Amino acid sequence: MNELEDFLALKHRFIPQLSVDCVIFGFHNQQLKVLLLKLKNLDLWALPGGYVEQSEGIDDAAQRILEERTGLRDIYLEQFRVFGSADRSTKEFIQKIMEVHHPESMNEPWVLQRYVSIGYYALVDFSKVNPTPDFLSEYCEWFEMKQLPKLAFDHREIIQKALETLRITLDSKLVGSNLLPETFTMMELQSLYETILEMPLRRNNFQRKMLSLDILERIEKLYTGAANKAPYLYRFKKS
Amino acid sequence: MNELEDFLALKHRFIPQLSVDCVIFGFHNQQLKVLLLKLKNLDLWALPGGYVEQSEGIDDAAQRILEERTGLRDIYLEQFRVFGSADRSTKEFIQKIMEVHHPESMNEPWVLQRYVSIGYYALVDFSKVNPTPDFLSEYCEWFEMKQLPKLAFDHREIIQKALETLRITLDSKLVGSNLLPETFTMMELQSLYETILEMPLRRNNFQRKMLSLDILERIEKLYTGAANKAPYLYRFKKS
Repeated sequence: MNELEDFLALKHRFIPQLSVDCVIFGFHNQQLKVLLLKLKNLDLWALPGGYVEQSEGIDDAAQRILEERTGLRDIYLEQFRVFGSADRSTKEFIQKIMEVHHPESMNEPWVLQRYVSIGYYALVDFSKVNPTPDFLSEYCEWFEMKQLPKLAFDHREIIQKALETLRITLDSKLVGSNLLPETFTMMELQSLYETILEMPLRRNNFQRKMLSLDILERIEKLYTGAANKAPYLYRFKKS
Repeated sequence: MNELEDFLALKHRFIPQLSVDCVIFGFHNQQLKVLLLKLKNLDLWALPGGYVEQSEGIDDAAQRILEERTGLRDIYLEQFRVFGSADRSTKEFIQKIMEVHHPESMNEPWVLQRYVSIGYYALVDFSKVNPTPDFLSEYCEWFEMKQLPKLAFDHREIIQKALETLRITLDSKLVGSNLLPETFTMMELQSLYETILEMPLRRNNFQRKMLSLDILERIEKLYTGAANKAPYLYRFKKS
């Protein structure tokens, strides 16, 4: 376990008692999904997360963690909330994790301290992600938001707060442009909205609202000579 | 300086390298104002802030800091952003502050470390606040948003981000109900909006929009027998 030893040896490398947790959203088969890690030898899943190096900005730390778990660089991500209640009971869980595989780490009390965690959400192109577990986990997999497994710490609450933030910011073009491919139909855009909002939307109203936001560009159809019943394609305007 | 000695002696009481900064907004004389502290012997002002105790939630820490500076309990406050770039250059400023009045503290390197700061904004009833400096500052005063003094650290950026958040959340009733008195006229409400948004609003449109949000309750006028040209008073509906 070189990676763990490195980690334990380098405790001065990180800001103590501060962590970053990332809610990585993808959209696939009309489902909003989130990327989770299965903790080793425990029936628990967790969000990808990590620590902030002393010489590293918090946003850079989140980008680094995301790259390690997904293989993607320059992912769209946003801070959305800090989780810092005194009773996050992180200690008990970390103790379990460490006892199972790394009893030697139990001599390092700094690992077991209370952590304040900065929540980030990321929007990624599902098809481009290469899920990669870290040294505390055995799998890294996508889960549908509606079928989340048993989660460690307060990670269910963190995911819920990330989703609430996503809903509030849905009308900025960034959400759609990060979760949809380059071009898409109005139906596909509506489907993304319906999935995130968990409610059906009326087609005419939706189309009118989207066009009024002035964030979409309609792509002209190529003239093929044949009758063309295919729906229009759209893309987000370049800002 | 008992308070400072206590503070330096009790370094294990706080989560290291983590701070809270509070942007306290009040509304007075048609101006949005923010509460600032004048640092001792330096030509610099700073936001009210402090540290998080090991046994204290981050929201509780913010409430405690707010109460110490304003005398008010149970203030409306919200986290809005974490300021954690690696080059916040906090160290240099803290060094200046400490050198001037408390050279003995320079032997405590933990005071000079990099800090990640959680930004909170608070909405208070201007008339009820009793501004109280802390042990690093000589005055605690209100400033108009448009006439801010020279600020320490990245506090100007923190105030700017708080204002942006306030604008985005303006249509929730909480902003108005915390900055206005119990009852108010539609003109007073419009004036608050115009001040925060820094733009004039059309009276008819504003009134229609506010009423459509279904958050206001109109108070019936008392029948006095005299011709009554006074404007209607409103209050926010109880939720």
